[in-house]
Amino acid sequence: MAAAASPPAAALEQLSKTKMFGGHNLRFRHQSAALGCPMTFSLFLPASPASKLPVLYWLSGLTCTDENFIIKSGAQRAAAAHGVALVAPDTSPRGLNVEGEADSWDFGVGAGFYLNATNEKWKNWRMYDYVVKELPKVLSDNFEQLNTSCASIFGHSMGGHGALTIYLKNTDKYKEYDATLLVKKCNTLSTPILVDQGEDDKFLAEQLLAGNFEEACKAAGAPLTLRMQPGYDHSFFFIATFIDDHIAHHAQFLKSG
Amino acid sequence: MAAAASPPAAALEQLSKTKMFGGHNLRFRHQSAALGCPMTFSLFLPASPASKLPVLYWLSGLTCTDENFIIKSGAQRAAAAHGVALVAPDTSPRGLNVEGEADSWDFGVGAGFYLNATNEKWKNWRMYDYVVKELPKVLSDNFEQLNTSCASIFGHSMGGHGALTIYLKNTDKYKEYDATLLVKKCNTLSTPILVDQGEDDKFLAEQLLAGNFEEACKAAGAPLTLRMQPGYDHSFFFIATFIDDHIAHHAQFLKSG
Repeated sequence: MAAAASPPAAALEQLSKTKMFGGHNLRFRHQSAALGCPMTFSLFLPASPASKLPVLYWLSGLTCTDENFIIKSGAQRAAAAHGVALVAPDTSPRGLNVEGEADSWDFGVGAGFYLNATNEKWKNWRMYDYVVKELPKVLSDNFEQLNTSCASIFGHSMGGHGALTIYLKNTDKYKEYDATLLVKKCNTLSTPILVDQGEDDKFLAEQLLAGNFEEACKAAGAPLTLRMQPGYDHSFFFIATFIDDHIAHHAQFLKSG
Repeated sequence: MAAAASPPAAALEQLSKTKMFGGHNLRFRHQSAALGCPMTFSLFLPASPASKLPVLYWLSGLTCTDENFIIKSGAQRAAAAHGVALVAPDTSPRGLNVEGEADSWDFGVGAGFYLNATNEKWKNWRMYDYVVKELPKVLSDNFEQLNTSCASIFGHSMGGHGALTIYLKNTDKYKEYDATLLVKKCNTLSTPILVDQGEDDKFLAEQLLAGNFEEACKAAGAPLTLRMQPGYDHSFFFIATFIDDHIAHHAQFLKSG
């Protein structure tokens, strides 16, 4: 790690380091200024890069921490092959003891939705700022082997939607993404979007609405590849099956950038 | 599923079915006669086989259930590619409420060691009989797409040792294996053994003793490929990194058998 001259690098506590596919899974804790609490994140670094590594952010779905994707997806294989670093943040602030924060699986703890909350009670829920501003700074301050200006973002479920909204609001920062919803206001997209959707996903009909996203992309002229996958559900088994295609998809833009 | 004429097929309760890499992860519960309690096992079936599928048994390590390997290893990718079914049993009887059965992480529940216990108190701990006799029968009675006479066995940690001992006692039943210990009594092995061992595995020096196994193989003339892997530990990240090599290793013998 290399400390930047000014401002001082955020203090990172390394929680674990495990070798995998020639690289390493690293896990850190740090005090988040945006969220006002300690946060953990996971980072997969491929082995000894010849040049600085581009960064691919993974945003997880409801109830996940930074660990689920690292443990279950098998994404490190393709990340190592393509020479791309994977960054997996947690999905919300934790430990703040806000009343009712853990009452629902889809609101509060484990459910930050990658947005900045406007209700005073939820003032710490600023996952948008955390992912878009604070975390990239933490990375660039601490890891000289990363090129955080060459970044891309993807995710699953709540995180797929989060990746899409973050990309659409920051088309200068992220080269590519894939997700499930909301492209209507955007008519300047030239890079293709890749979305895989399990046909047996129990959330598809009422919540994910991939068809609506497809319509919006058509209306906005955004290039979308929506792959409906027969028999697949919403699980990490589905993610693991198609993760290589998505990493290859992002890698082609990160390499040419 | 096809019921055998006689004796009647063991009743299998399907707990889950999830598509992955074109095949399916299936999970079942059944009443085990050998263990005297309900047992769960996981089965990965590659997509629509042209011929009957050979069976590759995975024996897990201490504290695992039948699910850890299925969730964390990513082995389904290679199993689908090679057309091999994966079977992952649980690691011990459960729910028997034997006094002290859960007092230790390495004895009792989650720690069956794939042997038949001789102490009366632990009379239900007959994982050897369960894995070698009962489970193959359950599979052949219920899955006509499986060729259980074309089988192989491998595993990790307690399960690596279990796979080795089971193979050495049943060289007619299992075509190949990999593991960590005990080959001294055997001098008729012709098929090569593949063992991967992380050099940073915290159990290596005092418990796993890969060097002893290597010596024993040399003395018995057993062909061993022991790969010491620098930087790797005992975790599923280690397993996931090398699982493809092991499935390919077993598949070559299952195909020629």
